[in-house]
Amino acid sequence: MSYRFADRMERVHPSAIRELLKFGDDPGITSFGGGYPDPALFPLDELRSVFDEVLQEGNRSALQYTTSIGLPGLRSLIAERMTADGSACGPDDVLVLQGAQQGLDLVARLLINTGDVIVTENPTFLGALIAFNPCRPRYATVDVDEAGMKTEELEAVLRSTPEARFIYVIPDFQNPSGATLSLQRRVRLLELASRYDVLVLEDTPYRELRYAGEQLPTLRSLDTENRVIHLGSFSKTLAPGLRMGWAVAAPGILEKLGLLKLAADTQSSTLNMAVTARFLQRFDLDQHIRGAREVYRAKRDLMLATLDEHFPARVSFTRPDGGLFTWVEFPGEFDSARFMSEQALPHAKVAYVPGATFFPLVERPNFARFSYSGQSDQAMVDGLVRLGHLLHETL
Amino acid sequence: MSYRFADRMERVHPSAIRELLKFGDDPGITSFGGGYPDPALFPLDELRSVFDEVLQEGNRSALQYTTSIGLPGLRSLIAERMTADGSACGPDDVLVLQGAQQGLDLVARLLINTGDVIVTENPTFLGALIAFNPCRPRYATVDVDEAGMKTEELEAVLRSTPEARFIYVIPDFQNPSGATLSLQRRVRLLELASRYDVLVLEDTPYRELRYAGEQLPTLRSLDTENRVIHLGSFSKTLAPGLRMGWAVAAPGILEKLGLLKLAADTQSSTLNMAVTARFLQRFDLDQHIRGAREVYRAKRDLMLATLDEHFPARVSFTRPDGGLFTWVEFPGEFDSARFMSEQALPHAKVAYVPGATFFPLVERPNFARFSYSGQSDQAMVDGLVRLGHLLHETL
Repeated sequence: MSYRFADRMERVHPSAIRELLKFGDDPGITSFGGGYPDPALFPLDELRSVFDEVLQEGNRSALQYTTSIGLPGLRSLIAERMTADGSACGPDDVLVLQGAQQGLDLVARLLINTGDVIVTENPTFLGALIAFNPCRPRYATVDVDEAGMKTEELEAVLRSTPEARFIYVIPDFQNPSGATLSLQRRVRLLELASRYDVLVLEDTPYRELRYAGEQLPTLRSLDTENRVIHLGSFSKTLAPGLRMGWAVAAPGILEKLGLLKLAADTQSSTLNMAVTARFLQRFDLDQHIRGAREVYRAKRDLMLATLDEHFPARVSFTRPDGGLFTWVEFPGEFDSARFMSEQALPHAKVAYVPGATFFPLVERPNFARFSYSGQSDQAMVDGLVRLGHLLHETL
Repeated sequence: MSYRFADRMERVHPSAIRELLKFGDDPGITSFGGGYPDPALFPLDELRSVFDEVLQEGNRSALQYTTSIGLPGLRSLIAERMTADGSACGPDDVLVLQGAQQGLDLVARLLINTGDVIVTENPTFLGALIAFNPCRPRYATVDVDEAGMKTEELEAVLRSTPEARFIYVIPDFQNPSGATLSLQRRVRLLELASRYDVLVLEDTPYRELRYAGEQLPTLRSLDTENRVIHLGSFSKTLAPGLRMGWAVAAPGILEKLGLLKLAADTQSSTLNMAVTARFLQRFDLDQHIRGAREVYRAKRDLMLATLDEHFPARVSFTRPDGGLFTWVEFPGEFDSARFMSEQALPHAKVAYVPGATFFPLVERPNFARFSYSGQSDQAMVDGLVRLGHLLHETL
């Protein structure tokens, strides 16, 4: 039989790049595609001991239902970390989420009627568009340069878009561009949000993975008007398989997000919340992150040096101060998706993420996202050298 | 500042009973409120050994991202269980969910435009209404008797409701009534779904907790037209804190639900999926469930016997063949919510779930749901005896 779906499903499709990325699972392919953290960095032994401890106590509550907003102990520890990062808050200001991705879904559901506008960076995180799309928003985009979203463009967009409801922004080591929003632009973005009365959704999955330069204040910490909904995640600092993220926002917003969380999945895993809390108490996550930063910094440096040496000069790429990605720009007529399927995969055995679908409005096929977190040093260099040869032949 | 929310939020409210249930956390209160499984039944040692094993193998993939539809190994094991239960299927017919609750949310999003009609049992599971409400459905209801949804009423409802999109039904030990849909009515429900071309959402959280009578076939196993979306859960058989549920449905539906799952939260916890799969391989879940059934059967029998002996004759209640609840009916003018806040809580130190909000259209205040799973035998009897005294005084 055939099925009739709700109108919102017109905006729910398999990603165009999903087919291509399937090749990334082929062990014969060197993939720079996924934004996966390096599994060698997962604190496996520490997590094993914490699971053992939590389950050994005869305290069966870690396997039971709990409150939908999240275990109070974990919310306290997240509030402490947020406070140390400049956003003074308490446990009641924190909502535990099934990864920050759930925050993208819930915030869109909280704020967006069909046809309302979400302002995004251009390019932006594909997963956010996937989360927002079932609410059938329109998008308005603001280009990104090495200092992040261009706030002069943002003003023009907000002035001409009264239907704008919120600005979605990844201020630190943006996905996919790697750009970091400058302090001046952070301040300016909040001024504009206030003047045009829109909210700000700040997504910070990579924030703690800084390899160069000074940490900049979060938008939430600069916000004096309770306009910023802040999303954080332990996926890149601890382990994504736990699915532990959070939102911090004004009480009037957080209460509504909590009701949507209850409706969506009752609660996150009690056990994973208890284990994350115990890990934060028993071990020094910041020290763990410092170690991870060393590893990723070296991988970033190696990728950038290999691209410098082996890619044609007509191919440029960003030099991020943190995060997991560099954003590669090919000459104007180059189609990175077609090149990948016809050349890179069959001849260089290399995969990356073609960039077109990161642009919400007008796709630009001459970009690609390369992650430096997922391959060993040798595999990374070998793959990039092979790809460089192909590019020299092609361009 | 004040916030402007999307129109769907008009249907997202704190539950009227949430305030009352807060008293359930008071250790001085004997609560029959929550639908919590008995924590003494959680296989704590087995789960600890499985977590230890999964994390010890140096196989770090259990902490990494994985596919949004769920680990293939777990989907295979769920498919085997479904097949053994009469619904022949393979791993590709299974979508792993963040508890069956997530299935309620995703199915509503898949099928419901504003104003479309969902047909429910009357009364029905409050959490389902909470999940459905953000899609702004209307409800049509069909009364329940001891053999479940009255299919003669269902026909009248479907005939007069062309906007009906799906029938939501809990065939086994329904929440809150405890009723089980008879075989004859299962067949009839599917005939009517076919004739009026609506889908069926079958929710089975209590299915494996049968204490009397013969197991009846699932609607999914009787369905020859791919109309049934089946939701299952390990929350009541293993542990709710793992948040492990699943959907089985036709490929054309399951693919769309998988895309919505990806948008909603990327995936369920890789680790919890790996652990659940390993538990199913290493231990005999069916034997564990047989043990749980013995415990719950005794608790059910004790509650029913105590109610028989200590509640006034004018108070009636259901005698379910399984599940966790009995549904108590008080005389017509009785308000169970008011009685609880004014009498039961302060004077008998007893809590239950007032029944009014389980009725989607016309609330009936003279009902209440009592769970027999959450209290020790002594606390259960003492609480019910105290409540019985109060009721004798009041009625």
